Amino acid sequence: MTTTPNPDQAHYQSARARQDQLIKPTGALGRLEDIACWFAARQRCTIPAPLKTAITVFAADHGVARHNVSAYPPAVTRAMLASLANGQAAIAVLARDINAIYSVVDVGVAGTTCNADNARSEHIASGTADLTTQPAMSIEQAERALEIGARYASLSISQGATLLIAGEVGIGNTTSAACLIAAVTKLDAALLVGSGTGLDANGRAHKLSIVKQALNRVSSTNCSPLQTLSELGGFEIAAMVGYYLQAAQSGIPVLLDGYISTAAALVAQQMNPASRDWMLASHQSAELGHALALEYLQLKPLLNLNMRLGEGSGAAIAVPLIQAALRLHRGMATFAEAGVPNA
Amino acid sequence: MTTTPNPDQAHYQSARARQDQLIKPTGALGRLEDIACWFAARQRCTIPAPLKTAITVFAADHGVARHNVSAYPPAVTRAMLASLANGQAAIAVLARDINAIYSVVDVGVAGTTCNADNARSEHIASGTADLTTQPAMSIEQAERALEIGARYASLSISQGATLLIAGEVGIGNTTSAACLIAAVTKLDAALLVGSGTGLDANGRAHKLSIVKQALNRVSSTNCSPLQTLSELGGFEIAAMVGYYLQAAQSGIPVLLDGYISTAAALVAQQMNPASRDWMLASHQSAELGHALALEYLQLKPLLNLNMRLGEGSGAAIAVPLIQAALRLHRGMATFAEAGVPNA
Repeated sequence: MTTTPNPDQAHYQSARARQDQLIKPTGALGRLEDIACWFAARQRCTIPAPLKTAITVFAADHGVARHNVSAYPPAVTRAMLASLANGQAAIAVLARDINAIYSVVDVGVAGTTCNADNARSEHIASGTADLTTQPAMSIEQAERALEIGARYASLSISQGATLLIAGEVGIGNTTSAACLIAAVTKLDAALLVGSGTGLDANGRAHKLSIVKQALNRVSSTNCSPLQTLSELGGFEIAAMVGYYLQAAQSGIPVLLDGYISTAAALVAQQMNPASRDWMLASHQSAELGHALALEYLQLKPLLNLNMRLGEGSGAAIAVPLIQAALRLHRGMATFAEAGVPNA
Repeated sequence: MTTTPNPDQAHYQSARARQDQLIKPTGALGRLEDIACWFAARQRCTIPAPLKTAITVFAADHGVARHNVSAYPPAVTRAMLASLANGQAAIAVLARDINAIYSVVDVGVAGTTCNADNARSEHIASGTADLTTQPAMSIEQAERALEIGARYASLSISQGATLLIAGEVGIGNTTSAACLIAAVTKLDAALLVGSGTGLDANGRAHKLSIVKQALNRVSSTNCSPLQTLSELGGFEIAAMVGYYLQAAQSGIPVLLDGYISTAAALVAQQMNPASRDWMLASHQSAELGHALALEYLQLKPLLNLNMRLGEGSGAAIAVPLIQAALRLHRGMATFAEAGVPNA
């Protein structure tokens, strides 16, 4: 594994010094100031350039979906893959809105391959195995998913992206994500299993029992992060892990989305703790357990809009806010430039 | 006073029905769904049109500033007026960012008039009187400020604006705003007086004593909202009241900013309770008491970014988020259109 670059604290400080000279009370732009300094440290300059965003949505099916852990049938994954590719899904609308490089990758959707223009096929298998009774995927499959994710991160970077967003679609994937978050954080699964696409209380209780079954199956072994991922993950989640690891190694920031995204971020951080330095949390999802997962990563979300869609939608919503923070940092005058008396 | 139009509940419901048919779990876009329905009710259509935003920044000085209630000297108001007009101030940067109709209005800045292109002079006086010892302004001056604010709202609407933001600059204006918020809400001033542009604990204690002095002076009289405004207001705050009242009467939504803006909104709501139906809260400011003021109005802010700049900056930051909510509402496919199985 190559070395992960460190954010540059000297440029963080020079950006902070600039913020303190802009025509406003010190600190009055709140978290927008922090964002500008955060990017200054990572772009290694006092005034970061405007961001070019890339969004890659990974889609896959989950063997565990056969246990009715979702409010929607498994066939929705394939249907959503088509909607993602043809621009009808939420994240596709938002990607246009922020002029992002946008692509959709099938890493393991069951059934017919989608033939739309911007859907790439990197099909590993037609969904994972049932994680309640066996590993969701083999180590080789997990490694392949990591490689695919890394490759798409590199591709976006080669296309000029300076902010990376990974999204996902996969019926059953909040169950897999809950297993991963519990395995990494060691928190009680009851704190981490939410309603996903919209389960009622009974459905959630059933989902919790499924998650516990999976955790019991693997808890006896002292797993490596790669083993944990193969035991409990999904192909799209593993691809996101690879995407986040590659972004960090390339020194390019990622903007996390919600529950699934944060599960992948936790695994990435286990594999390479330095990868966390390249992660920014966009929003706090309404999904139970997301706040705890972000706390474990010591990341503070920018938004809290009661969203719980996934796809990368929460991250995409936060992009204009981040761009505005950078535009303010660049475009405002200093007290000296404007001839405004300072305190 | 002409009648204020009511938001149309039938279109709110038809927009909600559309949200429930878009290809996502019901409610998964959280507050973005509520925003789309809110605008549907006010534009009286199921799918609201994209918004054209107008930002009008009102600037004025405050007699109370002689009591050192701000971390900055009064001369900053005039200097900021120039920076607002020539595009160097935060709100000017943000206005360009969101392609807003942008104007700056001097309603009472002390000293030389600003001659920049987009600064309009509507000078009422060179700052208000000292509200600790006398009414900040006469009833006639308050009425004139209301008329100016109303006129600029109408002007923006005639230019095609469908979302109005009022911003402000005025050294000393959090003191005036604290007085107004206390007068309207009857809350203890100690809960409402914050650090403004950056007072330390001693400065804040002094500011609180000034606010209490003003409140004691006027509390014996049972004031009308107009009297309260003239006793304790500022010219820019009174103009914002007029702006909000006119927007409501014209059936055009306003996006509130922070502490000063919400003080104006409280007075507007006292003058015409129906005006509240046309207000949307953009963000919760870091200024002490803002959360309470919004609660009094029963408005829930979209963002909480620890901002406390004023100028309309928090409102401007929220505009892309609102536009994204409307784009999702318009651009996403329904389950039927996309051929996605519903739950």
